[in-house]
Amino acid sequence: MGLIVQKFGGSSVANTEKLDMVSSHIIREVDAGNQVVVVVSAQGKTTDKLISEELEIIKNPVKNREILNREHDVLVSVGEQITISKLAMLLNQKGYKAVSLTGWQVPIVTNSEHANGRIRYIENSKIEEYLTAGNVVVVAGFQGVDENGDITTFGRGGSDTTAVALAANLEAERCDIFTDVDGVYSSDPRIVDHVVKLDRISYDEMLELSSMGAKVLHNRCVEIGKKYGVPIYVKSTFEKESLGTLVSDKPPFEDLVISGVTKDDYISRITINGLENKIGRTYQIFKLMAENLINVDVIVQSFGEHITKDIAFTVKMNDLNKALEVFENHKEELKIEQILHCENLSKVSIVGLGIANKPGIASDMFEALYENNINMHMISTSEIKISVLVNSDEADMAVRAIHNKFFP
Amino acid sequence: MGLIVQKFGGSSVANTEKLDMVSSHIIREVDAGNQVVVVVSAQGKTTDKLISEELEIIKNPVKNREILNREHDVLVSVGEQITISKLAMLLNQKGYKAVSLTGWQVPIVTNSEHANGRIRYIENSKIEEYLTAGNVVVVAGFQGVDENGDITTFGRGGSDTTAVALAANLEAERCDIFTDVDGVYSSDPRIVDHVVKLDRISYDEMLELSSMGAKVLHNRCVEIGKKYGVPIYVKSTFEKESLGTLVSDKPPFEDLVISGVTKDDYISRITINGLENKIGRTYQIFKLMAENLINVDVIVQSFGEHITKDIAFTVKMNDLNKALEVFENHKEELKIEQILHCENLSKVSIVGLGIANKPGIASDMFEALYENNINMHMISTSEIKISVLVNSDEADMAVRAIHNKFFP
Repeated sequence: MGLIVQKFGGSSVANTEKLDMVSSHIIREVDAGNQVVVVVSAQGKTTDKLISEELEIIKNPVKNREILNREHDVLVSVGEQITISKLAMLLNQKGYKAVSLTGWQVPIVTNSEHANGRIRYIENSKIEEYLTAGNVVVVAGFQGVDENGDITTFGRGGSDTTAVALAANLEAERCDIFTDVDGVYSSDPRIVDHVVKLDRISYDEMLELSSMGAKVLHNRCVEIGKKYGVPIYVKSTFEKESLGTLVSDKPPFEDLVISGVTKDDYISRITINGLENKIGRTYQIFKLMAENLINVDVIVQSFGEHITKDIAFTVKMNDLNKALEVFENHKEELKIEQILHCENLSKVSIVGLGIANKPGIASDMFEALYENNINMHMISTSEIKISVLVNSDEADMAVRAIHNKFFP
Repeated sequence: MGLIVQKFGGSSVANTEKLDMVSSHIIREVDAGNQVVVVVSAQGKTTDKLISEELEIIKNPVKNREILNREHDVLVSVGEQITISKLAMLLNQKGYKAVSLTGWQVPIVTNSEHANGRIRYIENSKIEEYLTAGNVVVVAGFQGVDENGDITTFGRGGSDTTAVALAANLEAERCDIFTDVDGVYSSDPRIVDHVVKLDRISYDEMLELSSMGAKVLHNRCVEIGKKYGVPIYVKSTFEKESLGTLVSDKPPFEDLVISGVTKDDYISRITINGLENKIGRTYQIFKLMAENLINVDVIVQSFGEHITKDIAFTVKMNDLNKALEVFENHKEELKIEQILHCENLSKVSIVGLGIANKPGIASDMFEALYENNINMHMISTSEIKISVLVNSDEADMAVRAIHNKFFP
């Protein structure tokens, strides 16, 4: 007996038949004596359809961009509003009291950054009132309201964020995120044959995994979960009793060294050779990138007693030309000797809380690559992650080799 | 230079191309130096589509009807929300500052009768603030919010009501209702060849006309217009400069005797003969009808010194069997001698402020019918209206004959 938050994504609520499946997950918890708050996304392709209609109108997206973003949120927020009303109707038809609430009705109060709103606070009183009266409360994900009373939306993955934030604020027992898959896996099943479903994983590992292409949960929701200690279960909508994966601060004690192997494609490496070894030069390099809205990922600097130094870092391939142009324009000013680059790379990473404490993990990883004759273009490590750059055409093989090494 | 409210219905905003046409009507007023508040309906068939999706879910519309109605309003109100955001975007793209407001954002505060909300009051401050800042304000028609913060909708014709109520509350110069036709006509052009477009018509005449099948404006909006003296123009969206018809308390002085000829089909007449002439008997008859949710229209009672009386009245044809059954069950209790009925009738009416003051109107109308050999089954008159019942298969001929008499 407790309070549970459940979240169902767009493909889980795509039509009336699927809503029916969703309702059985809700009803099971209600029948077990729990109070349930449900967060839903827009049905199937609804949001995409609204955005394509918007693009019919907007020929010049820069003109009055702020106002357009405000209106964009008014438009796309209807997707979740449709889902909450339908699901509440369906539950009532099945004899379970349910009531829907939009973002502004809760209210979930955000800043005013349209299309990318951040939650400031959530009022619990209305939800609690409805729960006490015996209702399932169905809340629209992905949306809120700013202090001016304008509708805001949260950007992609926003419904997960709504769910975990509500669970944190209502001090729920747990937050169940229902998806197409029944948990978090040790790697991508499209690449690796014998992936392992993880029963438990820590918030930090999940953060590393989800920022690296394993798009099961969005980083924002995992961050909130970590801050407030909300146990998050990743479960399958399409299984009756999916145990799923528990994302929490209670990962397994000792049994798993690493949690997953992931890869990120379309990466290029830029190497700046012979940079003057002078305070501020490195800062200038990355300030230039930031000013040009180029995201830099891995950075490696070899540094010694020399009069010059080398810096290498990665950018997304579609930012490469812009980055090279920027440096070409500032070559003399920054006293750069040489700019090299390398395209079609992938970043292959292992993630695990055990990495820092258990020696030999890196060497096991490198051994797996060596055995398969795969060259590494860059290495970077953190407490819970080791990443290497490899040629993209060898990336899948690299993932498989490493996965076999750690999940034999 | 003043404040103008414009309303565009569902077919006027059905797609991006039509929104473009709508925007030109708005821009013309802005360019003329006016402040403009725009009220829009849902695009095309959007509401119908949402309702058909709702019917997929609702197998038992009686179960938890109140909650279903609440959720119905959450669902269907998205239609207007989509339109307001698109129109605001479009105006901004054309270089005209515009901002959208949903019903709850204004707010338009209603009672809690879902799917049939009535406006209690409207807050002007937000609209006025945006107008003062140079915006066109695009308001969602058909919707409001109750004092509990729940979304409400107004039922059919609700957007007209929103528009005229806003015009009244903001003390607008006028309210322009844009439709498919360029004004109010003296009759139905599908029946009468040479219909006359009316330049002006009084609120009362419009009320009689719109309750009798000339569905240009909804009664609710005309009533509000009358109460607050809002001049309402009925205009065509698809004409560049439609003069339209002015509905106001300033009808033409003397030139038109009647404003229109209309008909209503699918009517049946029930005659109760030999009803005991005793106080309360008539009341009992109509109480029975009301209890059984049967709408009674025209009532005629012949009344004399007799010990019994006869009452005749009309009901819609699909209520006839139920009504007859009810009377059959109460025949003895009410001491009814005989119940007669007559099906397949139509009510043909003329409407005009001049009727009461100008003698001979009724006789002109009856002459037209006599000349065409059309039998009248019932006659009823009011200050501004004369209605007769005729056989349905002669109704169109009756309308034409009467129209020819008054608009020769």
